[in-house]
Amino acid sequence: MLKSSRDSAGRTQLAFEDIEDLARGAAFLGAGGGGDPYIGRLMAEHAVREFGMPEIISVDDLDADTNVFPVAMVGAPTVMVEKGVSGADVDLSVNRLAAIIGKKPDAITPIEIGGINSMLPIVAAARLGLPLVDCDGMGRAFPEIQMVTFNVYGVSATPAVIVNEHLDTVIVETCGDAKRAEDLIRVAAIQMGLSVMFSGYPLNGQQVKDYGVKGTLSLALNIGRAIRRGRSEGNPFESLLAYLRSTEYFNRCKVLFDGKVTDVMRETTKGFAMGHCEIRNMDDESDSMHIQFQNENLLAKRNGKTVAVVPDLISIVDGETADPITVEALRYGQRVKVIGTSAAPVMRTAEALAVFGPEQFGLDEKFLPIEELHDDI
Amino acid sequence: MLKSSRDSAGRTQLAFEDIEDLARGAAFLGAGGGGDPYIGRLMAEHAVREFGMPEIISVDDLDADTNVFPVAMVGAPTVMVEKGVSGADVDLSVNRLAAIIGKKPDAITPIEIGGINSMLPIVAAARLGLPLVDCDGMGRAFPEIQMVTFNVYGVSATPAVIVNEHLDTVIVETCGDAKRAEDLIRVAAIQMGLSVMFSGYPLNGQQVKDYGVKGTLSLALNIGRAIRRGRSEGNPFESLLAYLRSTEYFNRCKVLFDGKVTDVMRETTKGFAMGHCEIRNMDDESDSMHIQFQNENLLAKRNGKTVAVVPDLISIVDGETADPITVEALRYGQRVKVIGTSAAPVMRTAEALAVFGPEQFGLDEKFLPIEELHDDI
Repeated sequence: MLKSSRDSAGRTQLAFEDIEDLARGAAFLGAGGGGDPYIGRLMAEHAVREFGMPEIISVDDLDADTNVFPVAMVGAPTVMVEKGVSGADVDLSVNRLAAIIGKKPDAITPIEIGGINSMLPIVAAARLGLPLVDCDGMGRAFPEIQMVTFNVYGVSATPAVIVNEHLDTVIVETCGDAKRAEDLIRVAAIQMGLSVMFSGYPLNGQQVKDYGVKGTLSLALNIGRAIRRGRSEGNPFESLLAYLRSTEYFNRCKVLFDGKVTDVMRETTKGFAMGHCEIRNMDDESDSMHIQFQNENLLAKRNGKTVAVVPDLISIVDGETADPITVEALRYGQRVKVIGTSAAPVMRTAEALAVFGPEQFGLDEKFLPIEELHDDI
Repeated sequence: MLKSSRDSAGRTQLAFEDIEDLARGAAFLGAGGGGDPYIGRLMAEHAVREFGMPEIISVDDLDADTNVFPVAMVGAPTVMVEKGVSGADVDLSVNRLAAIIGKKPDAITPIEIGGINSMLPIVAAARLGLPLVDCDGMGRAFPEIQMVTFNVYGVSATPAVIVNEHLDTVIVETCGDAKRAEDLIRVAAIQMGLSVMFSGYPLNGQQVKDYGVKGTLSLALNIGRAIRRGRSEGNPFESLLAYLRSTEYFNRCKVLFDGKVTDVMRETTKGFAMGHCEIRNMDDESDSMHIQFQNENLLAKRNGKTVAVVPDLISIVDGETADPITVEALRYGQRVKVIGTSAAPVMRTAEALAVFGPEQFGLDEKFLPIEELHDDI
């Protein structure tokens, strides 16, 4: 039984039973990345059982001077799912950031809504007794630390703190260049075991209002619900697409392909899960889709023609249940559907594309919105 | 003209003219590592001209609770000689360490006496208006951060701060494992350009008294003087060896070889200058010495037989002037002598050898003191 998800003031509140739906929806928004939602769900449920469910607050309710700390796991999802977090690492990353900047956090926010990184902020907020802001810095998941709206619009990524399971801690302070921070944090994270707790981009409430992708916790929860309800009604895809079309950001969407995974090439290298997969049409062997990923799915081509490209979302889901499949869970023989979804408008500006457009991933593609690539969206 | 190097209380004081001798002596103790002493000398002279010569204080004059901050450059000497330091990076590394541990430094100490890292603490002490302790943590140079007496005898290497020329800063906090700190600092230093300012191993006066290699600034100065004076008297080698034999630590020493450099293999890889060189006897082509290095010379073999091994010092010097030659300055055709020197006793204990004995460098050798390898020492 689901409890009501809105309190009397109209704010989204999470119930324990919501975590599973939220994890499923976040895995969809993870677009292949963000790590196994099952692991994330277990971590969140464990923390909530021990410390209670954090209050969810809307961006509109933030004061301009509220101190908001983003938290995330950084590393390769292939490693994250094996290592998890201890809790002490979560606390330490936030507490060291607070000590370094000399400000106590008033609230926690996800930095990306995809996968484990939608769950981890629940862990942090629950453990630290802080509210969680209904927002993130991507409206999806991305592999690198500079690929965040906060950076696009001028917030410094540093000081940033990373902590591993031994509580080894690395604090990075750069002079405003988030890509340099990413490069430093990446080599440190690799050395620290390729799955670390991150707290950085310390924000004030005004910055969250100005640059955050708002309401994404609620959106992820409702995506997860739509899939679950659709299943019980016999068509999770219809239910999912209907919900997406009703949203402010994700309203341009389409099932791009239906088929069987016939090839997966995946390496954990340079600190990421890198590779590609091929999916073939079961009714027409000559019809196939090729998807390239770096933690997240970046580019989908059907028979050589681009059908969706980053920062728009490319999500591979189970062909029966619509359960999202992360890149590390891709296997030969899976029956899947590929769903393309529009990214939030704040993620598609020229400034944003200069940070996480296709060229930033080394792709020889220009960004074209999914609704321009298809006549029927 | 040299000014007196002892004040009325018997303490060593440095004059501006001493810097050149100190740099030469430190290059000898650098055992091939520590970077070009000429560059180090220019940096020290520049800082002393601008800020004045720092007071040199003896370990005996330290109070037990004096806060002593070691400083050094970390990286590959091949890169250090190209990049130098700006000064602001030096200040920032010390000031960030002070802020992190909440203690102001009362004095600066070298962490290694070899090469640039004997000069850099002069820069730091001059700029920050602090005295410089006549001591270090090796009595030589070593390539890695855990290879310090302070670590051998239980002082934490961290918090440690590294800063590059952009003032990008990385702070490492580990739970007492200095090798883990080294691994983290190394990958960060590589990412930051392979030559960074380091401040770590924050010490109190008692720890310096208990674990430091005492008087090594004075020893380096006097080694540099002995070479210079010997030159004007026609035999710098005799003068150098006579002085070394009069010292407390370096009294077992020998010219191990005399010849011409006939091969150098040197790579800047994994964050170090790695490689080996071959030196041939000019009078007997079948007689040769092979020296292996990782920033510093580690192992000298004559015709396949070990004649000196780390932590004892293996210094290659110019065959005419006895000017020390660092590994990055080795060239085909150089006429050189190789001098082996005993390390300080504190560097030869079982605990010390477990940190920087030959096995720690991947060498298939046991440590044998130079005086046991030669009947005539």
